[in-house]
Amino acid sequence: MFQYTATYTDLYQLSMAQVYFNKKQNEHAVFDYYFRRLPFKGGYAIFAGLEELLTIIEKLRFNDEDLAYLKTLDFKPTFLAYLKDFRFSGTINSMPEGELVFGTAPILQVEANLIEAQIIETILLNTLNFQTLIATKASRIRQVAGDKTLLDFGLRRAQGPGGYYASRAAVIGGFDGSSNVITGRDFGIKISGTMAHAFVQSYDDELIAFRDFAENRPKNCVLLVDTYDTLKSGVPNAITVAKEMEARGEQLLAIRLDSGDLAYLSKKTRKMLDEAELSYVKIAASNQLDEYVIQSLQNQKAPIDIYGVGTNLVIGKPDGALDGVYKLAFANGKPRIKISESISKVTLPYKKQVYRINNEEGVLIGADAIAIADESHVNRMNHPVEPFKSLTIAKLNQEAMLKPVMQNGRRLHKIQSVQEIAAFSKTQLAGLPEEYKRFDNPHIYKVGISDRLKQERDNLIEEHKI
Amino acid sequence: MFQYTATYTDLYQLSMAQVYFNKKQNEHAVFDYYFRRLPFKGGYAIFAGLEELLTIIEKLRFNDEDLAYLKTLDFKPTFLAYLKDFRFSGTINSMPEGELVFGTAPILQVEANLIEAQIIETILLNTLNFQTLIATKASRIRQVAGDKTLLDFGLRRAQGPGGYYASRAAVIGGFDGSSNVITGRDFGIKISGTMAHAFVQSYDDELIAFRDFAENRPKNCVLLVDTYDTLKSGVPNAITVAKEMEARGEQLLAIRLDSGDLAYLSKKTRKMLDEAELSYVKIAASNQLDEYVIQSLQNQKAPIDIYGVGTNLVIGKPDGALDGVYKLAFANGKPRIKISESISKVTLPYKKQVYRINNEEGVLIGADAIAIADESHVNRMNHPVEPFKSLTIAKLNQEAMLKPVMQNGRRLHKIQSVQEIAAFSKTQLAGLPEEYKRFDNPHIYKVGISDRLKQERDNLIEEHKI
Repeated sequence: MFQYTATYTDLYQLSMAQVYFNKKQNEHAVFDYYFRRLPFKGGYAIFAGLEELLTIIEKLRFNDEDLAYLKTLDFKPTFLAYLKDFRFSGTINSMPEGELVFGTAPILQVEANLIEAQIIETILLNTLNFQTLIATKASRIRQVAGDKTLLDFGLRRAQGPGGYYASRAAVIGGFDGSSNVITGRDFGIKISGTMAHAFVQSYDDELIAFRDFAENRPKNCVLLVDTYDTLKSGVPNAITVAKEMEARGEQLLAIRLDSGDLAYLSKKTRKMLDEAELSYVKIAASNQLDEYVIQSLQNQKAPIDIYGVGTNLVIGKPDGALDGVYKLAFANGKPRIKISESISKVTLPYKKQVYRINNEEGVLIGADAIAIADESHVNRMNHPVEPFKSLTIAKLNQEAMLKPVMQNGRRLHKIQSVQEIAAFSKTQLAGLPEEYKRFDNPHIYKVGISDRLKQERDNLIEEHKI
Repeated sequence: MFQYTATYTDLYQLSMAQVYFNKKQNEHAVFDYYFRRLPFKGGYAIFAGLEELLTIIEKLRFNDEDLAYLKTLDFKPTFLAYLKDFRFSGTINSMPEGELVFGTAPILQVEANLIEAQIIETILLNTLNFQTLIATKASRIRQVAGDKTLLDFGLRRAQGPGGYYASRAAVIGGFDGSSNVITGRDFGIKISGTMAHAFVQSYDDELIAFRDFAENRPKNCVLLVDTYDTLKSGVPNAITVAKEMEARGEQLLAIRLDSGDLAYLSKKTRKMLDEAELSYVKIAASNQLDEYVIQSLQNQKAPIDIYGVGTNLVIGKPDGALDGVYKLAFANGKPRIKISESISKVTLPYKKQVYRINNEEGVLIGADAIAIADESHVNRMNHPVEPFKSLTIAKLNQEAMLKPVMQNGRRLHKIQSVQEIAAFSKTQLAGLPEEYKRFDNPHIYKVGISDRLKQERDNLIEEHKI
């Protein structure tokens, strides 16, 4: 059974760390976390996972079981002794969790000795890539759902224990709650649930099933109406029970549709409920929903109040992964570069800062400028790889985006709650012009590099030419 | 930070369980686990996750933190007291882990009182759906890779802690090993690793980086050669270090290519290594591999010995999820059915058995027959939904596939190792005719229902007609 420990990592991190331990023990390094392509062919992403990552890093240790296992591999006793006392003691500068991010620019920066910076790589990528993917997916679904209630119902189809963070990230991206109970316990997420078909099936009579459920869950009663026949059996029985609840001074919260044509069935159901003077009873719908299906239902004015979204949300379909990377930019007093076989994968050297550009009214103009950390203002930003593309930004407001969140291995601020992060993210997203939010060919947010960074990078490429 | 506990479940399981607790405490139930569609448009799937599921179920408890949280929700004290002492005490019948499975037919069957059977639903689906998906993906990759070494390198792009089980399932599906260290510790998986670009970048000189690494990892030395220029810098430097290792009586294990045209670069690299009389040095390749890319590389006779597969494996791209469900078939002495809005989602009532059909030589004929549990032999199997399609199987060998694996909440056999499961799976797959294994329009494995099951199901549908 899974439980976090420092061996939840790639072997090569430890292989490299052993060499660093023997050869370059106190070399200082700067690594950048960033991704190359925006997920879902969208115009933005929501950065998520930071607060959990800091918690994991603070607690990251090699326990006795880890050390006993590592002893069986090709590691040396002195290095194993080092791992026994390992704890991360470096600095992390980052954008805040929930922030809008656009690729290429560092979202988070690790400053530590090479060994420690290397040892946290895998868990950092594993945590941030996944939660950023899911928060972004959730945000897209929120875009089309307006003020309807959005609930995560995906745990059964989630990628094993990955479902834990899927539910967390969904709320950061704009979901109202989840069915995933443990995330209520650990993150204060609002937990919701209805009933399964099995519940109705376990009774000889659907009406009695509904009645028993209502009696036991009078405050949060949602009845699933499609086990036998939605309009001929499920909805009429739900109406009967709603009336019985009224007689007891209670209210049926909602009915749930889980199959068939949700637009058609929700309209028919709404009419039946209204005719029974149950206009307060809501309609929840589920079954293979995603942002496109919900957009279609909304366009058809389906009277659905609550969308339960499962698989497509929690696995971040269709992408399934964010291509976030962790690249060395500076080590032992020198800028570092990776050249590789393709220009788009060349890395940006030096410890850097990212400036988000606003106009005089504080409105985003759709540009992030990456500069060497000691440049306090960027006059011109250049396309990272295409020649002749540049933008003068000298007179615009420039907000430094990377700020310290961990020093000497300790978190600098108290843990932000998921609700605080979600509220921050919502505000940030409201400030992003609509053309970046559309699904089809969204406006491209510009990310560029300062003149000096460009010059320094190009010099390094020249130096490495053979 | 995630850790398994019984609140890693959907709220509705507990809501329903409370009603069962109050109204139907000792009702016996039978639930089926099965999926509807084969993943990846393939012709088979590899069942995975069972042994871990049994371990999780044996240990499944509501701890103090869970109970304190549940107290804040709308649950009654008597039910919370029940949860405090909860442990699963039912029976599980299942196909063995690693078995070939084809959809529609139950793979696993839970017999327990309604409350317990309901409480384990989410963790069961979460565990089996994901691992079956990944084992199947891994098996497809193994199909095209022949006897080349296949390594899972996906942890950084895995869905958070889901990466733990991705590595396990990959080995069940035919991978040789993983970079994921904790899975070596917990499952005895062979752990492998190379080096990252950061390692090379952290040095002023690639040659010295390789030299330091070789000195520290003489037994498992794999050098990454594409940080600056694969053919002009990386490979020549690796050859220099390989020769130095030879002089010390050591051998360079491999070089790794991670970008560019892998077919072209592997051929050039092989030639350079061979000309340096280093024909024993292997070539490893990585970078966005999947079964189609590897098939293409194999068709081009790329001299790659080791494939490192990451993202596409561990997230099970493009599907990302298996649509496995858990459906009530029998409760309180009666068969149970769900009718829903679409005929393909109608469930099969009764406690059932699944028979796999072989000919006299024990060769699979490509058919599974689902029967009511007390039918010991099936004379004719019928298409589950299409009329007029049937197959006479009276004279063929019929192997009962569901066997007890847990009784009274206790595992009946010792835990099978991942290696044993993988070996079993390999044997089973060898017995499956090739036409089920091809990627394009594979042969359709037939899954049908006995005459009696069909009759009983149709009667129940009639009964529920309104």
